[in-house]
Amino acid sequence: MSALYVVTSNYSKFNELKSIASKYGVNIEMLDVPKFEIQHDDLEAIASYAALAAALIARKPLIVEDSGLFIESLNGFPGALSSYVYKKIGIAGILKVLEGLSNRRAYFKSVIAYASIDYNIKLFTGVVYGRISEKARGSNGFGFDPIFIPDGDTRTFAEMELEDKNRLSHRGAAFRKFLEWFINSF
Amino acid sequence: MSALYVVTSNYSKFNELKSIASKYGVNIEMLDVPKFEIQHDDLEAIASYAALAAALIARKPLIVEDSGLFIESLNGFPGALSSYVYKKIGIAGILKVLEGLSNRRAYFKSVIAYASIDYNIKLFTGVVYGRISEKARGSNGFGFDPIFIPDGDTRTFAEMELEDKNRLSHRGAAFRKFLEWFINSF
Repeated sequence: MSALYVVTSNYSKFNELKSIASKYGVNIEMLDVPKFEIQHDDLEAIASYAALAAALIARKPLIVEDSGLFIESLNGFPGALSSYVYKKIGIAGILKVLEGLSNRRAYFKSVIAYASIDYNIKLFTGVVYGRISEKARGSNGFGFDPIFIPDGDTRTFAEMELEDKNRLSHRGAAFRKFLEWFINSF
Repeated sequence: MSALYVVTSNYSKFNELKSIASKYGVNIEMLDVPKFEIQHDDLEAIASYAALAAALIARKPLIVEDSGLFIESLNGFPGALSSYVYKKIGIAGILKVLEGLSNRRAYFKSVIAYASIDYNIKLFTGVVYGRISEKARGSNGFGFDPIFIPDGDTRTFAEMELEDKNRLSHRGAAFRKFLEWFINSF
């Protein structure tokens, strides 16, 4: 099977995906083309647009993975634009907006958009429900991992080894769905 | 002079622009096509992409106006993605993130992208410096107007009549620059 390309410049994300792909015997490679991202409330729209834009340039079968943290009491903020919000106000900013709010329910959602070499786009999603911790804990993972505790666990994603996070995470779920489809289709 | 189209579905914004344009004898009309917005740190990039995308569909000379509130102590947040942040956490969210921070300096920036019928793009910018108020005041304007006090004044933008806001605002400055160029070019 030929290599599958992942449009990202995020090594932490790539390593998570690589670890899962290896279990399926799929070899993934980083495709470092600029990722073209639109403003949209839906990760599906952002990921499919980015995948198509990259496919037009790279002319290779590829995937884009986009994810966001949707906090219930904040109307889904930071949501589909989580990376931007993380870069600007970080974890401290999110914890501050949440101060005094008793509802800390949240979910992480991941969307994987696959673009074939002839520009078909197929989407796969994964969601993990949980809550926002009172303070940041752990140093693994990336982004808002240090403040997200998945249901059924007491650790934040950033306190988990890669294997555990991949087993529980939105990204792991979406990527496994993709891989099962991918290895049965080619 | 033929009409100039403004790509927006925001009536408050359109009314501000209309009031200024009338002083220059320029007739503007609302062009309600979907506004295609990319994720970017720079308003210039977002506005020019949106103007070009709209021009490809509408085939009319048009402008897009994008603006953002850049707060110094928040690393420029909410910045170029101010509309999204406003929609999700609103004024209350911004005031909360600012709690306890003594530096409340901020600026509003506006970028106007003009797309000609043959797809040339020209940009005009306006900036107004000021500070974030302790609480929201006033009900005119829109977006973050109730918490922005321009330097040299004690009122928020939302406490001003349209004429005063237009005279002082980022949007007014950018649009007057555009109009002066526009009436001398056509």
